[in-house]
Amino acid sequence: MAKGDKNVEAITARDVDFAQWYTDVVKKAGLVEYSSVKGCVILLPFGYALWEQIKDELDARFKATGHENVYFPMFIPESLLQREKDHIEGFAPEVAWVTHGGDEELEERLCIRPTSEVLFCEYFANAIQSHRDLPKKYNQWCSVVRWEKSTRPFLRTREFLWQEGHTAHATQDEADAQTLMMLHLYADFAEDYLAVPVLRGRKTDKEKFAGAKETLTIESMMHDGKALQMGTSHNFGDGFAKAFDITYTDKDNKLQHVWQTSWGLTARLIGGIIMAHGDDNGLVLPPKIAPIQVAIIPIASHKEGVKEKAYEIENLLSKNFRVKLDVSDRTPGWKFAEYEMKGVPVRIEIGPKDIEQGQAVLVRRDNREKVTIRLENIEQAVHNALQELHISLFETARQNRRNRTKEVFRVDELRETLDESAGFAKAMWCGDRACEDRVKEEATATSRLMPFKQMPIGDTCFVCGKPADKLVVWGRAY
Amino acid sequence: MAKGDKNVEAITARDVDFAQWYTDVVKKAGLVEYSSVKGCVILLPFGYALWEQIKDELDARFKATGHENVYFPMFIPESLLQREKDHIEGFAPEVAWVTHGGDEELEERLCIRPTSEVLFCEYFANAIQSHRDLPKKYNQWCSVVRWEKSTRPFLRTREFLWQEGHTAHATQDEADAQTLMMLHLYADFAEDYLAVPVLRGRKTDKEKFAGAKETLTIESMMHDGKALQMGTSHNFGDGFAKAFDITYTDKDNKLQHVWQTSWGLTARLIGGIIMAHGDDNGLVLPPKIAPIQVAIIPIASHKEGVKEKAYEIENLLSKNFRVKLDVSDRTPGWKFAEYEMKGVPVRIEIGPKDIEQGQAVLVRRDNREKVTIRLENIEQAVHNALQELHISLFETARQNRRNRTKEVFRVDELRETLDESAGFAKAMWCGDRACEDRVKEEATATSRLMPFKQMPIGDTCFVCGKPADKLVVWGRAY
Repeated sequence: MAKGDKNVEAITARDVDFAQWYTDVVKKAGLVEYSSVKGCVILLPFGYALWEQIKDELDARFKATGHENVYFPMFIPESLLQREKDHIEGFAPEVAWVTHGGDEELEERLCIRPTSEVLFCEYFANAIQSHRDLPKKYNQWCSVVRWEKSTRPFLRTREFLWQEGHTAHATQDEADAQTLMMLHLYADFAEDYLAVPVLRGRKTDKEKFAGAKETLTIESMMHDGKALQMGTSHNFGDGFAKAFDITYTDKDNKLQHVWQTSWGLTARLIGGIIMAHGDDNGLVLPPKIAPIQVAIIPIASHKEGVKEKAYEIENLLSKNFRVKLDVSDRTPGWKFAEYEMKGVPVRIEIGPKDIEQGQAVLVRRDNREKVTIRLENIEQAVHNALQELHISLFETARQNRRNRTKEVFRVDELRETLDESAGFAKAMWCGDRACEDRVKEEATATSRLMPFKQMPIGDTCFVCGKPADKLVVWGRAY
Repeated sequence: MAKGDKNVEAITARDVDFAQWYTDVVKKAGLVEYSSVKGCVILLPFGYALWEQIKDELDARFKATGHENVYFPMFIPESLLQREKDHIEGFAPEVAWVTHGGDEELEERLCIRPTSEVLFCEYFANAIQSHRDLPKKYNQWCSVVRWEKSTRPFLRTREFLWQEGHTAHATQDEADAQTLMMLHLYADFAEDYLAVPVLRGRKTDKEKFAGAKETLTIESMMHDGKALQMGTSHNFGDGFAKAFDITYTDKDNKLQHVWQTSWGLTARLIGGIIMAHGDDNGLVLPPKIAPIQVAIIPIASHKEGVKEKAYEIENLLSKNFRVKLDVSDRTPGWKFAEYEMKGVPVRIEIGPKDIEQGQAVLVRRDNREKVTIRLENIEQAVHNALQELHISLFETARQNRRNRTKEVFRVDELRETLDESAGFAKAMWCGDRACEDRVKEEATATSRLMPFKQMPIGDTCFVCGKPADKLVVWGRAY
């Protein structure tokens, strides 16, 4: 970059201090701002626009698979939360309690939903009577509250935006299929839309959702080698149905319990995008989610014909892409740095000499190479650049995951491996909770998932040495 | 209606008991369900779909007028809420307080936002430095909480969905223009999209928003003659700016306070649609907001060719309308009643005889007249029916308002008029708060608004007899 090109404030280098780099990007790109409310952040227009993109795309995919949106209250009476034993144990320590309405103390305190299973269950118990009422496939977009001790923008905040799906089915098979379908929907979205490669599999009993029979998960690796859980899909079996007495009469007029699922995905995905793709110049946005896909920067825009040509290009590209033409009085250098910081996938530079020669300069955000293109081919060139960028981001992230994935055969080996360089470690596990606890204690690692595609690398547990048939991916997680 | 046509449960007649009719419609049309959380309701798929339609349309209008979406935390520290004196006095009695996070008592209790002015002000105070940072035109979609004593679905609930816009400007003129623009945007939306005629004007000081210099409002009349406030736009002047020290340096390098506005509109609009347009057969939806605009009901669908033709019509109409073809095994009569209850604007009936003769039957939801149409004209016929229905709903509501609007010249006359039949009453007012209080006491009516178009009907106050130059519309409100 030429001298003086970089007028935005510098950020910490990614490989020097990843955590500080993350905080710098989040702030300098204008995604969030802190408020005086501890543990909560403000999503500024650019940060919220990313969430809107995620929301719109996922919402369309939910609707296309037969789900309907609803909105349930944010409050849960304490007695209702306590109905399912594992569930209350999992969530009680981290809920916020409302005790007063105006000046009056409430008769029963209410928690702000940390998740809404119990509210949906209470509703299902009333609304479902016959097999004709099934399936119910509901989703809601809302915020939930969990009183976390330590917080970071997007990754862990006391209030966060998410969607939660809740379904009820007549048969176990249907619920099993639903749980799996949603997991694959999440995984396809992460890969096709966010260019983040994910592993698909199931959680161990220790790591599963409080009250679930089984939790499926997608897990990704960030640039620094740490793991990020990107979305989970829970199979409840008939556990909640029995706790809440949710029954229906089947075609033979027999009373049956329903089978349920829930699945959720949060604004932490935005943190995932930042940490999977970002670099020392800021955010790098996968093209499909980028609120601005193409930034057009006129050079020497006071010269005759430059602005006109820039507007012409804006008009042309706006038909198929989300375009921002910046004709403000900032210097081109300032603009380059600004749109790089904001991760805009493609930049078009157009100046008097370019116009003379019927060309423009195209710069892809990831490799930042300047390519001269013919103006008559500009739409195709932008289209290609966006496609290539998506593939490149995905492949780079996958290569990083490949490089940082090891096989280990002892707990101390796991610890040493992760201490040396964060990443995923595959190891065989007997299925015993005690072994999993030892891994946490001795290697400060958690089981991320048991991949659907099990490719064993041995037949004994890497902790206790007993027979083992489960391949688990371990790591240190956000 | 032929015998046996009506298989859905009957609802209370509208003119027998309007309140019960409203509750019946809300429940039987499947808009909401009560939950065990007092004062909060569940928005079921159909109810939430109406909110989504409102949201999508308004959101597009907000963005087209230069606003950006953001998301601020739901919590407000008590000390922050207290910063603006009038504001805290207005809201403190009705906020919900969070006092505990998990097992720990909070150092400072937090209220759940009843509205977010103070959070935006705190942010603006930090984010706005120079005239280059202005204007800020933000909006957020969220829920807010107000601890109301008596509640009704959509009209008044403890938690409700809304949007709140918050803007900051360099000059008073800009803030004035913004306040007015948003009021007109709301009014146009209510009339063009919801077919609800509204009066536009300003609130008296007594009725204005806590902390505002001036509140603009749109007021509509429901079928029973009672008033519904549909949306408000507040001009804060520099009051909040001074309380929160929100300043910027202008082009001459002088420190100035900003000028602010806020404006909001809630899911009570859905209640307004129900009460403005509904009838004894249930909901009547204005076509632009209807999630289903056309219901296609095959008659004798077991007969050869009927279903095929119905699918053909569905395909054709789906290009330009939101269509639902119901091929379930319910009787046509059940389906007629069901889609009438849900307010679907247009119904198409198609049976073997119709097909033979190349025709179908079209029924408009409001007048329920059966019209035979040629199949080759079906698109045009549906298009016309929807347009006519919109106009008809709007005109019917306007005629109702006209019939129920009186002029009064004494407070006892106002009371008698409203006791006899609810409606709007125009009267001249001196501007004195004491007179307004007397109206409330003696006629149990409130000032709805002072219309922008002031057409005086006298020159003395209808309460105290002193000189008066303000025409006020009075009424009893939801």
